Amino acid sequence: MQLFPDTTRIENDSLIVGECDLNILANEFGTPLYLYDRATLESAVGTYRRALEYSYPGQGFLTYAGKAFLCLAMAEWTQQSGLCVDCTGLGEISIAVAGGVKREHILVHGVNKTARDLEAAIAHAGVIVVDNLVELKHLLQLARPGSFPDLWLRFQPGVAVETHAYIQTGIQDSKFGMVAEEIVQAANFCRENSLPLKGLHFHLGSQFRAPEPLGVAIDKALDLARDIGLKQSWSLSPGGGWGVAYHEDDLPQPDVGNYIRFIAEAVKEGCQARQLSLPRLHLEPGRSLVARAGVALYRVGVIRQTEHRIWVLLDGGLADNPRRALYGARYSALPVRQPDRPNVAPVWMAGPYCESSDVLIEALPFPEVREGELIAVPVSGAYQLSMSSNYNGARRPAVIWLEGGRARLIQRRETPEDLYRRDSLLVK
Amino acid sequence: MQLFPDTTRIENDSLIVGECDLNILANEFGTPLYLYDRATLESAVGTYRRALEYSYPGQGFLTYAGKAFLCLAMAEWTQQSGLCVDCTGLGEISIAVAGGVKREHILVHGVNKTARDLEAAIAHAGVIVVDNLVELKHLLQLARPGSFPDLWLRFQPGVAVETHAYIQTGIQDSKFGMVAEEIVQAANFCRENSLPLKGLHFHLGSQFRAPEPLGVAIDKALDLARDIGLKQSWSLSPGGGWGVAYHEDDLPQPDVGNYIRFIAEAVKEGCQARQLSLPRLHLEPGRSLVARAGVALYRVGVIRQTEHRIWVLLDGGLADNPRRALYGARYSALPVRQPDRPNVAPVWMAGPYCESSDVLIEALPFPEVREGELIAVPVSGAYQLSMSSNYNGARRPAVIWLEGGRARLIQRRETPEDLYRRDSLLVK
Repeated sequence: MQLFPDTTRIENDSLIVGECDLNILANEFGTPLYLYDRATLESAVGTYRRALEYSYPGQGFLTYAGKAFLCLAMAEWTQQSGLCVDCTGLGEISIAVAGGVKREHILVHGVNKTARDLEAAIAHAGVIVVDNLVELKHLLQLARPGSFPDLWLRFQPGVAVETHAYIQTGIQDSKFGMVAEEIVQAANFCRENSLPLKGLHFHLGSQFRAPEPLGVAIDKALDLARDIGLKQSWSLSPGGGWGVAYHEDDLPQPDVGNYIRFIAEAVKEGCQARQLSLPRLHLEPGRSLVARAGVALYRVGVIRQTEHRIWVLLDGGLADNPRRALYGARYSALPVRQPDRPNVAPVWMAGPYCESSDVLIEALPFPEVREGELIAVPVSGAYQLSMSSNYNGARRPAVIWLEGGRARLIQRRETPEDLYRRDSLLVK
Repeated sequence: MQLFPDTTRIENDSLIVGECDLNILANEFGTPLYLYDRATLESAVGTYRRALEYSYPGQGFLTYAGKAFLCLAMAEWTQQSGLCVDCTGLGEISIAVAGGVKREHILVHGVNKTARDLEAAIAHAGVIVVDNLVELKHLLQLARPGSFPDLWLRFQPGVAVETHAYIQTGIQDSKFGMVAEEIVQAANFCRENSLPLKGLHFHLGSQFRAPEPLGVAIDKALDLARDIGLKQSWSLSPGGGWGVAYHEDDLPQPDVGNYIRFIAEAVKEGCQARQLSLPRLHLEPGRSLVARAGVALYRVGVIRQTEHRIWVLLDGGLADNPRRALYGARYSALPVRQPDRPNVAPVWMAGPYCESSDVLIEALPFPEVREGELIAVPVSGAYQLSMSSNYNGARRPAVIWLEGGRARLIQRRETPEDLYRRDSLLVK
């Protein structure tokens, strides 16, 4: 239950989230179904805000990672909660703008922004995080008199964090960001061309749990800030995303206070030592803001006993959640009916797709289940739907927003017709 | 060049496919762009047909794997070429039907077919490949007087082929199919309930290159066919998909004649030994029918030299092609301009997405390239677009059909608005 949203409880032998019975939601909206619990989102934001206020004497800001999951309603919610939104290029900028995100709250990342991405960023963003010198030259070509986004430079600190290689971004020789000498060149270029250089960003990776490598990277970034003369109201954005537990074996959830305290101390002491003014501290907590607010709901179809395994086949899997296949992510689950039944045996939960990688959960101790039962998979709010596909003709799931005891459809399920909406026949 | 479609050549220093200059196509349709060359599709079908006619005295059939890439035009093409189409559930059935695939050409696979999948299969398919006993019972409940698809039973032969574990499907304890005793039970159930049992199917995996394991599986399947009394005009479908070379180091392309000859001999001799009539032999050549007909076209953005690497950043990657991240697939590429330039150094080609797994090709010897150049990635016809996502707000690419020197748009590029077409705002 600790993996589930804050509002989760058992009532009448059923799993309840956000005051809604998951049986009723599945019957009304169908499965696979994704739920987002607003209270859990708010509580994650509150935890970060309080930790920042407590630990950091300067101004603190929180950025929502658009790539974790962005839709119009989620964009709206970020504005109601005073968050910035990080967008990678035209696509995410378009969703953010359509969802009402204000210019000063749009941050644009990206390692290879196209002209259209940069034009959209100039038109709509408060901050462009410049990844490299080539991009900086493009930006100068596109700059017109009038308002221009603040520029932050992405620094590649050459520091590794312990996480999956696929989401480790700050190491030397990665495709991301500039090494120290390039940052100095970029800063000179900004000065010579009157481009509004206002900050530094780095990102060590996602889903990490020990903040120490951040200290090394923060020190390097502060050296650079001093060298390139960042002074009044400058911004520092020390990424990346703090880890979350996906499985009972990963509990307790990594401590957010600890993470923020570590960053705040490193920045405070580092600035003092270098006689730098405190930066506006922009945190990108990544999945830790949103992952636990999300639940995926599947219906059990076929149950089979093979020689060594019990297979529980679900109506979703690899197509809506490729994270086990991509990263070896290890999930947990509960049955919606009588979730407190005792476990009887390990089960293998797999989806309906014709591919062996379509196994969602392996060897999970589980109660006896029956065909037609509902299964709830917690910590499903980040990097599942945003990486989802139409593989095997899967229609992407409906998404529900839980707030004040009500469930609202914020993204409708795809229809079979959606699958060929962009197609033309050969013979007309 | 051997990895590219048959019609590929160099003219005026440019790469030409299907009599179309790739520079012109990229300018007209934008990038990333996927191309399908009809001549190469036809030639692959021809190779299989000839090999079947030469080696197999019974009736032979070819099935196109819908999950490799299905759109309306591709569905149409399968009908013009007399192929069957294998569909996993309602989504792919809907595309096939809208693309004009006839009932007798629709085969439905799937390990956990929902009621809607089964209803669609009964309404539109010629064959349902029954995965398990639970499904068979559902089918009986849904059966109505009138025409009913032929049923084939999916056999799990417990035989492994050498391929990536994710696409190895025939091993014991996999989620797919029935072991021998279950097949016998299923056959009895069909007989008792007058369900039209007409064949056996098995699938050992995709992308394999040595046919020998098929011999063991075919022998087991023929034993079963005899035991369950399959006689007149019965079907045998020995999967799965034959391998293709993705990289120069994998050449030559695995020999199709060899593959077909092996299957044909095993079936002929096995039937003779068991006094079985020759089955209708249904082959599912998988990616080998379509992979090499497809080319992905990207435009180079930023080029960077880091300490040990040259990064060539493209405008697509993980979102349109997750195969390297999922399977460690190793691709090759050529520049569209002067593709015969000498290689000067290994390059790392990566996409624009904020994730370290978004590297498309590692350490490929390559000529010196410039920003704005076009890069063509061969063997891009299978399992790329069908697994593509909107990750990082990526809009899925346009798809072009090359035939008779003409290029036709068969799937339009997604727009930014497409990304939030299914969304509702919280505040209305």
